[in-house]
Amino acid sequence: MKFYNAAAPSPRRVRIFLAEKGIEIPRVDLNLPAGETHSDDFLSKNSLGEVPLLELDDGSVIAESQAICRYLEALHPEPSLFGADPLERARIEMWDRRMEFQFLNPLGLIARHSFDFFADKLTQVPAFAEAQRADMAGKFAWLNEEMSDGRPFIAGERFSVADITGMTASMIAGFIEVPIPASLTHLNRWDDAVRARPSWDA
Amino acid sequence: MKFYNAAAPSPRRVRIFLAEKGIEIPRVDLNLPAGETHSDDFLSKNSLGEVPLLELDDGSVIAESQAICRYLEALHPEPSLFGADPLERARIEMWDRRMEFQFLNPLGLIARHSFDFFADKLTQVPAFAEAQRADMAGKFAWLNEEMSDGRPFIAGERFSVADITGMTASMIAGFIEVPIPASLTHLNRWDDAVRARPSWDA
Repeated sequence: MKFYNAAAPSPRRVRIFLAEKGIEIPRVDLNLPAGETHSDDFLSKNSLGEVPLLELDDGSVIAESQAICRYLEALHPEPSLFGADPLERARIEMWDRRMEFQFLNPLGLIARHSFDFFADKLTQVPAFAEAQRADMAGKFAWLNEEMSDGRPFIAGERFSVADITGMTASMIAGFIEVPIPASLTHLNRWDDAVRARPSWDA
Repeated sequence: MKFYNAAAPSPRRVRIFLAEKGIEIPRVDLNLPAGETHSDDFLSKNSLGEVPLLELDDGSVIAESQAICRYLEALHPEPSLFGADPLERARIEMWDRRMEFQFLNPLGLIARHSFDFFADKLTQVPAFAEAQRADMAGKFAWLNEEMSDGRPFIAGERFSVADITGMTASMIAGFIEVPIPASLTHLNRWDDAVRARPSWDA
């Protein structure tokens, strides 16, 4: 098995997952700015030219971070990061998708529509980035209210993939300077806690 | 168990899933334009004011269409729409996310940033909608090439949630008039086939 990796948020979700699970997989580090995810060889593995990618020993591949993580969870069930029974799995997936759609994706779009790095990769619309940026305060306040029940992690009493998606969003938020307001104590409590985990630096 | 439904793409994913599974669940139909997903009662169930929502008999709730569908798959495993073993599950999730991120989400954003219905619900940026619209031809061509191996369904030989996500994207594409070019015969073959399924009208 081989894990195709790069210095980017999506592969980082898998790196955090691997660190939390204590799994080691041989890595192939690709250089994104050098275009290494768009070589003929890599495009033959993933026609979207995206990492992360998991290549199995028979040559078959799995793309998309959550598909990779869920596959690895099936091979290494403990500690469970997707949930141990149908209801817990549903709650974790609900929260994972909320973290993805309310935070990770909009923050990623802000970056894509406002940073020079992406200028030659898409038609940037700065007004869209600004509109998304203006929405983030309300989203942070919503999540803070949700966390006001004192639970330690996004989906409940234990760490899950929803926290990993949140950690990835938090990393992007820091990078593009959309900080969590200091007044949102419940959300900052969570953010401080996940930033202190060894997997933050994965 | 109760399924909170409305005339919108996300609840439609669950309706198609229920139809394909042959599952019947009591429905509560909410009127989106009348604001029924933002009543105090509904917000106490889902603070995001979004459908679909599944309410269990003990009052606990599951939001987010794929979380709901995966929970129902655990209760009603056959026919499997998420995959029967870890590798098939990974491939279906990979394709489901590709359908979501390459098609469903961008098409939804085009609608949100260009249709009057959404004018008072977000800061519309028409230039963003136009840029997304211009990208769709390339995405359709990519998927057509992927389907040129002749497989009947998005993730392989059998119908899965990846097709349901694709059907929802196709419905939006029709609604906002971003048609699949006639020259893309493999993609049109798939589109014709899924539109002919009884679940299309769910």
